[in-house]
Amino acid sequence: MSDTHSHSRTTEVRWLTPLEMAAWRGFVETYSDLVTALEADLVPAGLTLGDYQVLVYLSEAPERSMRMCDLAVMLQLSPSGLTRRLDGLVRAGLVARRGSEADRRVMLAELTDVGMTRLEQAAPTHVESVRRRMIDLLDTDELEAMAGAFDKIRRHLAGDQLATSSAAAPA
Amino acid sequence: MSDTHSHSRTTEVRWLTPLEMAAWRGFVETYSDLVTALEADLVPAGLTLGDYQVLVYLSEAPERSMRMCDLAVMLQLSPSGLTRRLDGLVRAGLVARRGSEADRRVMLAELTDVGMTRLEQAAPTHVESVRRRMIDLLDTDELEAMAGAFDKIRRHLAGDQLATSSAAAPA
Repeated sequence: MSDTHSHSRTTEVRWLTPLEMAAWRGFVETYSDLVTALEADLVPAGLTLGDYQVLVYLSEAPERSMRMCDLAVMLQLSPSGLTRRLDGLVRAGLVARRGSEADRRVMLAELTDVGMTRLEQAAPTHVESVRRRMIDLLDTDELEAMAGAFDKIRRHLAGDQLATSSAAAPA
Repeated sequence: MSDTHSHSRTTEVRWLTPLEMAAWRGFVETYSDLVTALEADLVPAGLTLGDYQVLVYLSEAPERSMRMCDLAVMLQLSPSGLTRRLDGLVRAGLVARRGSEADRRVMLAELTDVGMTRLEQAAPTHVESVRRRMIDLLDTDELEAMAGAFDKIRRHLAGDQLATSSAAAPA
């Protein structure tokens, strides 16, 4: 922390401009309430937003299954983080863990028929909720900018994580 | 839930277009990792992102204090939610609760000198973190769209909340 401080004191701080501040505050003052509202809309379906995302990824994968390691990368989770994320879905019978037939050492996460049905039942209400609370409020320019901006932010975060892990394990 | 379902079945579902999907997935697949990274950057300052926000609001208020009820509205928190949010800051001596001198029935939250110092110490590193992970990645159009989009979303959420509470208590 002392390093950080001396660094802050000796270099000029680039405070945010009014436009930058409006973008930052817009995000930081809104995301949590938006997510809370979307989660509340999903309660009747018995799913969290994170659960829903996992079911969507699996539903889009060939044979509705993904290697655990690929799913972990997609969700930017550690192996133990993925296990925790999947536990509830597995208990509810929506996702199954099984060994790959091609290579039994490889573990797969698979969307079950029950999981697919649950996703199909939840989807119309969820899409309506996403539209009402976010998408239908935005014009084309805003949608394009939002897609582009979060794509850049996500890539930067992924690169950052890659840099951290390769620094931790240079081999 | 059966109502929702029959509703979904009888009305046409407006699925997201590719552009709408890109904007939605951009947000939902990114916000959590972005917030996690920003929170990690704030750990050395001993603050969460939510704590930081509270300190900023108080620092900008006249006499660095706000009525609890106004602060709750600003943070879109219930009275008990605000109490929980403030507890840690009060224990750490960064915020004090006191009765208003004008009207002792009105409770104020006040930024202490220790709190102001902590905020000033944390600010340069936090701004650098916000720039690096979000703001500096975006061009002017994206910043404008982001500010406008989240402003619309936030206003809609606030209106929704208002509608819910007035429906619950029509008087």
